[in-house]
Amino acid sequence: MKALVLASGGVDSTTCLALAVQQYGAENVLALSLFYGQKHYKELQAAQQVAAYYQTQHLQLDLSDIFKFGDNALLANSAQEIPKTSYADQLEQQNGPVNTYVPFRNGLFISAAASIAIAQDCSLLYYGAHRDDAAGAAYPDCSEEFQQAMAEAIWQGSGGQLRLEAPFIQDTKAGVVARGLALQVPYQLTWSCYVGQELPCGICGTCRDRLAAFRQNGVDDPLIYPQAEQEENK
Amino acid sequence: MKALVLASGGVDSTTCLALAVQQYGAENVLALSLFYGQKHYKELQAAQQVAAYYQTQHLQLDLSDIFKFGDNALLANSAQEIPKTSYADQLEQQNGPVNTYVPFRNGLFISAAASIAIAQDCSLLYYGAHRDDAAGAAYPDCSEEFQQAMAEAIWQGSGGQLRLEAPFIQDTKAGVVARGLALQVPYQLTWSCYVGQELPCGICGTCRDRLAAFRQNGVDDPLIYPQAEQEENK
Repeated sequence: MKALVLASGGVDSTTCLALAVQQYGAENVLALSLFYGQKHYKELQAAQQVAAYYQTQHLQLDLSDIFKFGDNALLANSAQEIPKTSYADQLEQQNGPVNTYVPFRNGLFISAAASIAIAQDCSLLYYGAHRDDAAGAAYPDCSEEFQQAMAEAIWQGSGGQLRLEAPFIQDTKAGVVARGLALQVPYQLTWSCYVGQELPCGICGTCRDRLAAFRQNGVDDPLIYPQAEQEENK
Repeated sequence: MKALVLASGGVDSTTCLALAVQQYGAENVLALSLFYGQKHYKELQAAQQVAAYYQTQHLQLDLSDIFKFGDNALLANSAQEIPKTSYADQLEQQNGPVNTYVPFRNGLFISAAASIAIAQDCSLLYYGAHRDDAAGAAYPDCSEEFQQAMAEAIWQGSGGQLRLEAPFIQDTKAGVVARGLALQVPYQLTWSCYVGQELPCGICGTCRDRLAAFRQNGVDDPLIYPQAEQEENK
């Protein structure tokens, strides 16, 4: 059984990769990283290091052309700023998806991964969506309803060759970290911050989520944050 | 209401575009053509001419990088030959998809189109799949089961912003042509042949299907075929 894992270099997908390696062996796991025109390459560098750590094959693909038709705070072609507040606060200020929602990004990533997975004779496609990402409709393409429909579309559209699974879809982010800690995931190699400076900013939505997830597990995030933010997040 | 239509330049998608223009007006319709590394550009040229005829906006995108990980007779990087027999004969010779099935191509096309449609404030995404394409599992990503699951994935994944419709999913190809003839679709501008020489070959699976669909409507295909194939298909 060969598995392809969507590997962004972040906490969730790295935990997903660790799980796949444990279940199927590194030689049967392919990591796939997709670039979509982000403002920085830190995530991809993290994904490369994680794949090197686990000694899995690592494929990379640039999908940024597809997103050139839209505007989104995550993209290098956008003048929008990445919000420095939590997702909960962002959701209170507006209806529907947050401004770091890239339209149907996960749908597109999963479809591209499905095509490559079939071409590479994989019968399983893993990705790291979890319950917290979908909360309050922040990222509708992380919800369980989306995951189930997409899994059915891939099963039908591949003629029964490929199964899509999101093993953490019912877990919180803290739950994902708990599973990763048990698997001894090298979280010091991962990257989550949307901003992409030398150190993670500690104040964007994804930094806040990450820090909270480690804190809820009673451990420190192994990444180093600027001193001011480190004090605040204690 | 704005609609985005996947427009390949062939009979089915051109009929779909005509239907969208009739329903929503050309100014509210965007045609999207996707290049995926085919052996020729004839389809894209046809799609351009069709969009010019209907005076709809026309977007183009190259997705060929995604398919570089696989092998398929349709792709320029493949040594495989395009079969010169009907789909029915090809299906008899093998189990599962035909060798012109590009893994999950429609899933990927629809996902890319969904992302662009949302970015362009469209609330409807049209594509021209029909019953004959899915027959015998030739192209599993043209089936009604796939279409329904994909529609649900897009609805959920877009936070209820975008609806996917395949208006011909229960029609035969002859039925699609019947609707197109009523809409006075300029079929002389379309292109279906997989081979991509000066004239359509008349003997690949898609040429055979196309010729049969016109014949079943009691009209001639307005395209000109090589003399030998024209006689055979009378």
